[in-house]
Amino acid sequence: MATLTKPSVMHPEYIVTNDDMIEFLNSVHGDAPHKAAAFKMIKNSSIDKRHLIMPLEQVLSLGDFGERGEIYGKEARIMSSHTARKAIENAGLLPKDISMVVVTSCTGFMMPSLTAHLINDLDLPNSTLQLPIAQMGCVAGASAINRAYEHCQLNSQNNALIVTLETSSLCFQKEAGRLQDFITDSLFGDGVAAVVMRGDDQKPGFKIADVRSHFMRNTEEYIMYSLSAGGFNFSLDKDVMYSIDKAAPHIGSFIRESFGGLANELDFYVFHTGGRRIQDEVEHCLELSPDKLQHSRACLRESGNTSSVAVIDVLNRHFPERSAGEKGVLATFGPGFTTEMAIGEWQ
Amino acid sequence: MATLTKPSVMHPEYIVTNDDMIEFLNSVHGDAPHKAAAFKMIKNSSIDKRHLIMPLEQVLSLGDFGERGEIYGKEARIMSSHTARKAIENAGLLPKDISMVVVTSCTGFMMPSLTAHLINDLDLPNSTLQLPIAQMGCVAGASAINRAYEHCQLNSQNNALIVTLETSSLCFQKEAGRLQDFITDSLFGDGVAAVVMRGDDQKPGFKIADVRSHFMRNTEEYIMYSLSAGGFNFSLDKDVMYSIDKAAPHIGSFIRESFGGLANELDFYVFHTGGRRIQDEVEHCLELSPDKLQHSRACLRESGNTSSVAVIDVLNRHFPERSAGEKGVLATFGPGFTTEMAIGEWQ
Repeated sequence: MATLTKPSVMHPEYIVTNDDMIEFLNSVHGDAPHKAAAFKMIKNSSIDKRHLIMPLEQVLSLGDFGERGEIYGKEARIMSSHTARKAIENAGLLPKDISMVVVTSCTGFMMPSLTAHLINDLDLPNSTLQLPIAQMGCVAGASAINRAYEHCQLNSQNNALIVTLETSSLCFQKEAGRLQDFITDSLFGDGVAAVVMRGDDQKPGFKIADVRSHFMRNTEEYIMYSLSAGGFNFSLDKDVMYSIDKAAPHIGSFIRESFGGLANELDFYVFHTGGRRIQDEVEHCLELSPDKLQHSRACLRESGNTSSVAVIDVLNRHFPERSAGEKGVLATFGPGFTTEMAIGEWQ
Repeated sequence: MATLTKPSVMHPEYIVTNDDMIEFLNSVHGDAPHKAAAFKMIKNSSIDKRHLIMPLEQVLSLGDFGERGEIYGKEARIMSSHTARKAIENAGLLPKDISMVVVTSCTGFMMPSLTAHLINDLDLPNSTLQLPIAQMGCVAGASAINRAYEHCQLNSQNNALIVTLETSSLCFQKEAGRLQDFITDSLFGDGVAAVVMRGDDQKPGFKIADVRSHFMRNTEEYIMYSLSAGGFNFSLDKDVMYSIDKAAPHIGSFIRESFGGLANELDFYVFHTGGRRIQDEVEHCLELSPDKLQHSRACLRESGNTSSVAVIDVLNRHFPERSAGEKGVLATFGPGFTTEMAIGEWQ
């Protein structure tokens, strides 16, 4: 066993609404033939606002991968240190108690990664294992949890610090003018979240009993990056919308094999945010009552899809209302197409 | 326990000698004031040749991160599939027996990563765990081994496929004209290596008994990337030359705590290649007899520093001559500054 203790979540200060975004896209791509269709979809996204690390005007004037990398390095260091410190405190631990640091971040690139910065800045032990994950996109939050779980299973004295950090605004590419680009420009938000997994289960939280991964064959193009002088260019195939009814049964069978009963009989569901359509599909395919996804929906509404950060944000929203003994599942979807799942109970 | 079985190693077809490289650098930076000093160092590098994925002339005309990314995606898929298949065969396993795929590669970027490609192309199980590591540089080979070890410790039926792949030629930046740039341009080579770790130890190889990581504080600038429109820009601080006498004692204490005796009393040492000076320092600091590093030195001589690939290449060279019961250590150095170590015995 190993327990996810109370997370720490932070969203940066610059707020963008859908109206801001429509005005912004209109100013850049005013002659796009699909703009009316795109703007209608953006208005129906169920996102009220997103938080970015810089004002929209500054996003528009972002330079090449070099300039973006410098901003990323500076912002990521500041955002991650503060949030990670708070997560260690929430876990009732000290920096010296951390044995592994996992960082997920697919919207910027550093080598050495933030794991090195965090060991230095938080004064983690010299023996801390480093696991930076840059290529798992939205699924990475649960990937990090699942690798941390393996680490904590080996020794109950192990404690893993997980830091998820995304600056999607730094992946905005002015020249990307397809319908799907407008949608993704309006979907992703910036943020950071940290959580500590305690190997000794000596704090309240989500106690993980088992983890699983599922890969869907021949869907590498569903969610992918291409590269350019401007860095990472996100591409979202519309087929991804039809992936959930193929992925959800694997979450269902994981639940049944772990706890018996039906996939919709658990007490809580910690799903990352995806988008509105993804959430509707999850609810439909697992036959969940609408209240089960309320925290995922609130997270999407208040901060958009924050990629690997979202699942930790949603987990955090569960803390005030969960009771010991409740059974739940945590799951994320992302590039591959990959589903990462963890199951367990509240303690 | 868990055993590293016989690796599979492949170097691409285009061969570059130091003389080729001196001519090449002279053509690009003929007016560099430090060129005589640099060329002398290159001649003393103890590297006879390196293998690249393209001819030197083509390296010179590489475009931006977009063009490099396309070449990387194509070459990495071809190189990794072939080598991974052979490693699974060497392990006496079938693709269906693989439970985790770890890919290390810091010289290109893909999302989804090569882990997704390998699951598709090799027909690995849908449940295969994916661990792509992009930000650990030269230390990543042993990082991958150590995370695979944790995975295999959990269940003796677990088997991890590790694929290390580097295309340093795609990180060549024509405008980089400092002395240290000349050195790194002449040091790194391209290659790919794969190895399977078997959780059930049912094949000969290096049976790992324990793993460890050591991080050196406040040395993030020793080995680092900056970013530009051309992608990844490698930077090697000369202080890295003085890091080994601080890192090596931690390898020594790991050996003593595991086996007793002195750091130089093991039967074999699987060190990644680094560079000539790094190898001399390791030999000196651990008081090793010259024969102990012969495979690391041969690997450097024949293919340069292939970053995360090198340690698997060196491990492969140990296979013909090792005997059951011999004790050994495996170690790599890289960004952080990080040392990753594994200890065990041949079986």
